[in-house]
Amino acid sequence: MLQQNSSEYRGFRTAGIRLTEELLPELAEHRTEFLGDKLLAIHQFDKAHIVMLTEKELIPRDAGVSMLRQLRQMENDGIERVRMEAQGGMHSGEQYLIRMLGEDVGGYIHLGRSSGDLGAVSRRITARNHLVTTLRLINEVRTVILDLADSYLDTVMPGYTHGQNAQPTTYGHWLSMWAAVLRRDFQRGLALLGRLNESPAGAAILTGSDFPLDRQRTARLLGFTGVIPHTMDAILSHDVDCLECATVLAIHANNLARLGDDFELWMTSEYSFVDLPDRFCGTSSIMMQKRNPHFSEKAKALTSQADGAVVSALSVERGSTGLAILERRVTEDALWDLFKNLHTMLKQSVLVLPEIIVNAERMREVAESYWAQAADVAGMLVRTHSIPWRTAHQIVGILVRLSSERGARPTDVTSELLDEASVLYWGKPLGVSPSDLSDSLDVTASVRRRTLFGGPAPSAVSPILSDERSLLASDREKFGVYESAIEGGLDELERTIDALVK
Amino acid sequence: MLQQNSSEYRGFRTAGIRLTEELLPELAEHRTEFLGDKLLAIHQFDKAHIVMLTEKELIPRDAGVSMLRQLRQMENDGIERVRMEAQGGMHSGEQYLIRMLGEDVGGYIHLGRSSGDLGAVSRRITARNHLVTTLRLINEVRTVILDLADSYLDTVMPGYTHGQNAQPTTYGHWLSMWAAVLRRDFQRGLALLGRLNESPAGAAILTGSDFPLDRQRTARLLGFTGVIPHTMDAILSHDVDCLECATVLAIHANNLARLGDDFELWMTSEYSFVDLPDRFCGTSSIMMQKRNPHFSEKAKALTSQADGAVVSALSVERGSTGLAILERRVTEDALWDLFKNLHTMLKQSVLVLPEIIVNAERMREVAESYWAQAADVAGMLVRTHSIPWRTAHQIVGILVRLSSERGARPTDVTSELLDEASVLYWGKPLGVSPSDLSDSLDVTASVRRRTLFGGPAPSAVSPILSDERSLLASDREKFGVYESAIEGGLDELERTIDALVK
Amino acid sequence: MLQQNSSEYRGFRTAGIRLTEELLPELAEHRTEFLGDKLLAIHQFDKAHIVMLTEKELIPRDAGVSMLRQLRQMENDGIERVRMEAQGGMHSGEQYLIRMLGEDVGGYIHLGRSSGDLGAVSRRITARNHLVTTLRLINEVRTVILDLADSYLDTVMPGYTHGQNAQPTTYGHWLSMWAAVLRRDFQRGLALLGRLNESPAGAAILTGSDFPLDRQRTARLLGFTGVIPHTMDAILSHDVDCLECATVLAIHANNLARLGDDFELWMTSEYSFVDLPDRFCGTSSIMMQKRNPHFSEKAKALTSQADGAVVSALSVERGSTGLAILERRVTEDALWDLFKNLHTMLKQSVLVLPEIIVNAERMREVAESYWAQAADVAGMLVRTHSIPWRTAHQIVGILVRLSSERGARPTDVTSELLDEASVLYWGKPLGVSPSDLSDSLDVTASVRRRTLFGGPAPSAVSPILSDERSLLASDREKFGVYESAIEGGLDELERTIDALVK
Amino acid sequence: MLQQNSSEYRGFRTAGIRLTEELLPELAEHRTEFLGDKLLAIHQFDKAHIVMLTEKELIPRDAGVSMLRQLRQMENDGIERVRMEAQGGMHSGEQYLIRMLGEDVGGYIHLGRSSGDLGAVSRRITARNHLVTTLRLINEVRTVILDLADSYLDTVMPGYTHGQNAQPTTYGHWLSMWAAVLRRDFQRGLALLGRLNESPAGAAILTGSDFPLDRQRTARLLGFTGVIPHTMDAILSHDVDCLECATVLAIHANNLARLGDDFELWMTSEYSFVDLPDRFCGTSSIMMQKRNPHFSEKAKALTSQADGAVVSALSVERGSTGLAILERRVTEDALWDLFKNLHTMLKQSVLVLPEIIVNAERMREVAESYWAQAADVAGMLVRTHSIPWRTAHQIVGILVRLSSERGARPTDVTSELLDEASVLYWGKPLGVSPSDLSDSLDVTASVRRRTLFGGPAPSAVSPILSDERSLLASDREKFGVYESAIEGGLDELERTIDALVK
Repeated sequence: MLQQNSSEYRGFRTAGIRLTEELLPELAEHRTEFLGDKLLAIHQFDKAHIVMLTEKELIPRDAGVSMLRQLRQMENDGIERVRMEAQGGMHSGEQYLIRMLGEDVGGYIHLGRSSGDLGAVSRRITARNHLVTTLRLINEVRTVILDLADSYLDTVMPGYTHGQNAQPTTYGHWLSMWAAVLRRDFQRGLALLGRLNESPAGAAILTGSDFPLDRQRTARLLGFTGVIPHTMDAILSHDVDCLECATVLAIHANNLARLGDDFELWMTSEYSFVDLPDRFCGTSSIMMQKRNPHFSEKAKALTSQADGAVVSALSVERGSTGLAILERRVTEDALWDLFKNLHTMLKQSVLVLPEIIVNAERMREVAESYWAQAADVAGMLVRTHSIPWRTAHQIVGILVRLSSERGARPTDVTSELLDEASVLYWGKPLGVSPSDLSDSLDVTASVRRRTLFGGPAPSAVSPILSDERSLLASDREKFGVYESAIEGGLDELERTIDALVK
Repeated sequence: MLQQNSSEYRGFRTAGIRLTEELLPELAEHRTEFLGDKLLAIHQFDKAHIVMLTEKELIPRDAGVSMLRQLRQMENDGIERVRMEAQGGMHSGEQYLIRMLGEDVGGYIHLGRSSGDLGAVSRRITARNHLVTTLRLINEVRTVILDLADSYLDTVMPGYTHGQNAQPTTYGHWLSMWAAVLRRDFQRGLALLGRLNESPAGAAILTGSDFPLDRQRTARLLGFTGVIPHTMDAILSHDVDCLECATVLAIHANNLARLGDDFELWMTSEYSFVDLPDRFCGTSSIMMQKRNPHFSEKAKALTSQADGAVVSALSVERGSTGLAILERRVTEDALWDLFKNLHTMLKQSVLVLPEIIVNAERMREVAESYWAQAADVAGMLVRTHSIPWRTAHQIVGILVRLSSERGARPTDVTSELLDEASVLYWGKPLGVSPSDLSDSLDVTASVRRRTLFGGPAPSAVSPILSDERSLLASDREKFGVYESAIEGGLDELERTIDALVK
Repeated sequence: MLQQNSSEYRGFRTAGIRLTEELLPELAEHRTEFLGDKLLAIHQFDKAHIVMLTEKELIPRDAGVSMLRQLRQMENDGIERVRMEAQGGMHSGEQYLIRMLGEDVGGYIHLGRSSGDLGAVSRRITARNHLVTTLRLINEVRTVILDLADSYLDTVMPGYTHGQNAQPTTYGHWLSMWAAVLRRDFQRGLALLGRLNESPAGAAILTGSDFPLDRQRTARLLGFTGVIPHTMDAILSHDVDCLECATVLAIHANNLARLGDDFELWMTSEYSFVDLPDRFCGTSSIMMQKRNPHFSEKAKALTSQADGAVVSALSVERGSTGLAILERRVTEDALWDLFKNLHTMLKQSVLVLPEIIVNAERMREVAESYWAQAADVAGMLVRTHSIPWRTAHQIVGILVRLSSERGARPTDVTSELLDEASVLYWGKPLGVSPSDLSDSLDVTASVRRRTLFGGPAPSAVSPILSDERSLLASDREKFGVYESAIEGGLDELERTIDALVK
Repeated sequence: MLQQNSSEYRGFRTAGIRLTEELLPELAEHRTEFLGDKLLAIHQFDKAHIVMLTEKELIPRDAGVSMLRQLRQMENDGIERVRMEAQGGMHSGEQYLIRMLGEDVGGYIHLGRSSGDLGAVSRRITARNHLVTTLRLINEVRTVILDLADSYLDTVMPGYTHGQNAQPTTYGHWLSMWAAVLRRDFQRGLALLGRLNESPAGAAILTGSDFPLDRQRTARLLGFTGVIPHTMDAILSHDVDCLECATVLAIHANNLARLGDDFELWMTSEYSFVDLPDRFCGTSSIMMQKRNPHFSEKAKALTSQADGAVVSALSVERGSTGLAILERRVTEDALWDLFKNLHTMLKQSVLVLPEIIVNAERMREVAESYWAQAADVAGMLVRTHSIPWRTAHQIVGILVRLSSERGARPTDVTSELLDEASVLYWGKPLGVSPSDLSDSLDVTASVRRRTLFGGPAPSAVSPILSDERSLLASDREKFGVYESAIEGGLDELERTIDALVK
């Protein structure tokens, strides 16, 4: 007889059934060690599926109850260990149950399921759980940044474009930008969570089942907030769980890399804008003077990793519907690894950001040394002399050149030099008052003048911070709905099993 | 004097002002031909900015009115032609106005602006306009698909996984999947539109302006639905206009490529599932028998192009805040080209999809020839003989092997052969009735049995189509808000100018 | 005193030396588990460096000899285990030696070295060793293919373009193409090996050392075939070890994916050109009829993984010289994993290719059923009737259409139908002899006529195979030079240590 | 009759021949404007193919001569203009010849050809021609760098790792690194050229022709250095012309981006290491102080573009043999654009590099201010006091910390402070002589001590420069072989035509 001895059951793919030869061991795809982070989700699906089958009376109640009891036993013995022993990968639950309870009990678990929904359900649960952590951590970083920004509203520093000193701003203005950036990262992630936390369970491989499964029930017990309606779409479309997931993470990683790049530049000896306490620094085995700030490089490593993951995911999904199945493990492995590195990075950010030592004096010194305030002089000319912007711009351009040729610092410039520039431009002096001129050259005053909506004046940054705090609160509320559904569903699963096995 | 003769004005970067030498011509970045699709948006921003400056009395009313009149003149003469002549790229408006009206009038236009917001505003307007077209076209394709699917609810075909015949489904079920896929593409695009259609205007290069610009007013006149609050974020963060834009398009393109791949496969002589009218086919200069279906290859070309655009965009944004500015043209060029090819493709889809000739007979023949209905036999055994799924699965596995070894087609299989398989498996026959067996082997019956939520039974696909129609209607409504804001804002701009220049 | 107790030595980065605080544990970069595949190479470099220092009398001979003895002891105890215990990552050798022998002996090992060359040397040795395996395996596959092709010179099958039947060729012709493709993969890999197997040792971090290290000697002892001359280039340029390595592998993987795609298509029930013995096939947990060919999907997974690795590597190398150091671990991890999956795939190819079951009858049937031989009819008309190619092409185009409209198979076509087409084209019949016509429609004759250099006629494929065999032999010879140098160098290292420690 | 009137001939794909309907205009693939840079190559292939056919007497000599005369006429009238008018894309030659000479003459041109080899030949000629320019320009930059480096052998500057000051080196040492980097770029390019400049002509679409074409002759007349033997490989493998081409360029672009990044950083006000003459600088429309160095950003834009091209190319080539044909235009367009931008960049490099203004004083000031010379102090301790490296390293680590805590500059450090550090470390002073100490702190001396092979000492850089000059000369020689073959072949083509048409 070809039926396997239950106690030694090793899976449905054995010689003599459909195929005449055993599979070469190195080709086996259903190996538990290939599950990666999905192992626990498979276990939860096993339980929820049996509960649903039992409730709907699609399998004998006794068989259902026995299987649930046995899975509880597995939990006592250690899910990972037992499933690794049982082997079978996504089918480790069935292999274990048949070995322990015989095929006439354990043989019922797979009714109405396929490797298809096992893979899709476990991928979505795993991605969702990781994403929930990501979103929680992003909000922690938002909190840290909003708290920090308040302390630096008056800390003048230069803003840069093309790597060149552009205009004076503040460290608080710069910090508050990241609250906006991370808000968008959160919101993209939340929209993804909404699409991701829908259940493919019951869709089997593409056509569902000819048994009347209750897809809503299984979904609820697994903490999903809905069901993916179309059965083929549920299993064979991967725009959400693979592509959108990879790209949303990659955009976030790219943002963090920019943050890392800003700090890396500002931590150079040449900039000396910021520093880190020693406990955050490595040194060198040969250059003992080194204080290497790891934070920035790790943030940047993340974006390199994420870009690769995006490309792999896009490449995997090439081809006709249903073609890529084994290939998708490339995407999964890349995503789980990326999530974990991202979480490490976000936790470090929460730790590092408030510890960054800001050299306000150096920032200010640079802000006033390289003509970042030049546009302010032109603005003053427009206001005090009613001349067109372009005319003012050109006169100040000449002024900058003259001061540079004569080795004068911006703050050394006089009304006379400005007149010289004006005469050179259009043949007449301007006669600007020394106080107007010096006021326009003062970088603190420059920042305070920029009270425009969203500008760097402390009075303009404060409302931005306040708005971001409100948005954060509202984001947390929306996020809470998902957290509750997930927790609530899994609780209900355990309570239902309690009632069945009691 | 260094002031340029107005009538020959060629821009602010001339020798003698800030810099002592003329720029090497091949290094010029402010060239009108580099604007790509952004030219018209620059023109609109020029007008809206002057209106706002005039209304807020930040420039002399006369100057404002003269400039608006002159830009209307430009429109009569042809915006593109005039700006190409005026040169100056994003500054072509100023160069033209100074040439025509002198620096003491035209010199006012740039007050409170920078190349920074010129670039950001025109990028967002251009991307938004393209995206509006994309979303409109996606909805047209959704409509076409929903209409088509109704006609094919009973057209049985095989579903595939790993490239192998899996289970019977219908062409209508397959079609309806795409309604779901494109719905998600639309929804990702709409969320992007929400973030994209916010105005950076007034943020200048990063700190806004020390003049009290009315950022909300300019935003309204340009059809934006809001203002990006933070001025540095508005100009120097590119997660929305570059990264999210590229990735949302790439996911959509990847979906279309899958559609293309399905058709390409099914149009092979070997599959012969579908065909195209001759007007959609190319032939060969040497192999005159060829009927090459271009549609599929072009859909796939799109995803190759989009993947490259994603990687370029991610690469450009590497580096500290404000560093990449000139580089970003790589992203822009890639995006504009991608949008246009995408639109061509979507228009072709609207045209081609309803014209596809479906070979229902061939589809059905394949569906019943390669054991796609095997799982149905096992399901029948579970229902009629109360045996566990795994037992039924294994017995049918043996049945398939026996029939294959004996050269029998699935529909030729008898109860006797099934009993032979059963005896081989566990030593006892099953005694299945011939009618139960033949019913389980009938692919039409197979599909009709799958009435599960989201399954391929016609009775299950119909409600899915109905739901998708409702979702389409609601998506159109949400989209309408943006269409109205854009149209309304631009109308208001023209009406306001009418009133000012009358 | 700040000097650590030797027996508990835990590295150079301890509080009180350069930095006042201990590093946060989660930030530690020098962790042995981060070394990945590089651990053994670090060990070899430790030995070779000590030998060179000792020979050049840069350290006390006694210290050198003691350290070498101790490293031999480590080998007895298990290199990986001991280094994991010693921790310190690339500095695990020093940490171990100082613990076992005290700082006054073990403190000598790092003279003239840096983490810089430790990283660069171990990366190159590891990549080189993997690459040697790759190249060896590619040549094994070339051998298998060349042997196989001989058996299929007469096995007629259709060639395809645009997924459509194009012209008749043979399975042997198709197979022999892969000998050419893999030859180029080998040659790109060999050129990479030449650039890769040069030694950065002695370049320290970028300026080398102020001690007179013998860089050639260390290089020789590590099996390098040369020294990278410039010390900054040796450590801070990564176009070879990262970028070229990733891209050469990605091109190879892309080629293998195409091979996989060809087989995947041909293994569909609809094509049925080839099949696999059961031991190479998986089946399904629900669709027991399935015979899933894993080989193809794995080949394709490889290219998805490789494309991601290329993008990660390119992204890591963005930034100024020396900036990315920690980031580079992303590239390394990606490369080692890719190499290993590639080797699995190549080994499977050696195994699978000769076992593929070719359905010659089906191939031939398809080749003659869909007008793949149409161009042959046109060629015959040119030869027998001296008419221009284009005229012949158009007449046969009409012939194909007529036969298709009338449901005739290509082999059913008559001279009369051809005349009908000719009359339709230019008003006159051609009067082709039935034997000329039927000969032109015979796919075996078609293939045999293509005796052109490189064409599919058996008489043309044979010399190609013979040339490829010669090229393979010559490639093996060139490759042998590297294999010898590597083996010879490492042998010399051990013999030299034997002499020193005896 | 279906034969078209010659004078209005519009191609082989017309209604009534194979297909019953005219192609929708928007689906036409054979459009001359789609040829991009390939137009001229198509023209050359037209001529060479006719010459070969005529010489081999495969077409009537009169027809061959008439066609060649007519193509000479086209050259007089302007190849691009005439072909654009003739339309037909790759078939514009045939369309033109049939219109001018009738089908009974012009109808002969396509004998033995296909769109397949038209595409492959023109892609390879175009890529080869671009690549020849690239290689020529790379060698020009190598020359410029080698000449420059000599002038800066004594210009001390800091080397960096992790963005931190590492060790003193020289600008000349840094410059000479690029000679090595570009040498490898050249050599990869030359290997590519060798594989690229082989002729697919005569391979038609995949099986060659049943006419005895002389593939070697056509190859020679087109300047190819060889023939791609296998006809299917010649047309349907794209590892060389697409993948290797894209990746070799991307590695080169990545290298140039690093060069750009180095300069961008060094041109910041904070570094102030280098500057550019005004003619290379842009300024800002609002911040008139700006001197924006475009060079660096453009170099970096190139790598972003190239990375996208690599990913597009890899994506296009996914799928079974012969599947992607129309898609490949995505790769071509990306490559031609990339080549042109690359050439612009290389020409700019030749121009800019010698003009860069080096601020040697600032470089030196930084080099001695941030303890880049610390490892030299440790080296001195090892040499003068025979202590192990690690001991010396730790003592100097303490020294750096003490000096930093006390606000001392490196050059202010005394033997007493060193003793204090030594006592703190191991309880005993070292008694270093002040001259030994000050010598070890001198950055010029530091550099001069590094006479190691490949090190920064002027005496070590000189031989490196000399070796690179020799390698450049030998590279030029190898390259000359290709230049001659190309030029020689095309000359022979013209001379042969001269003889035929005279």
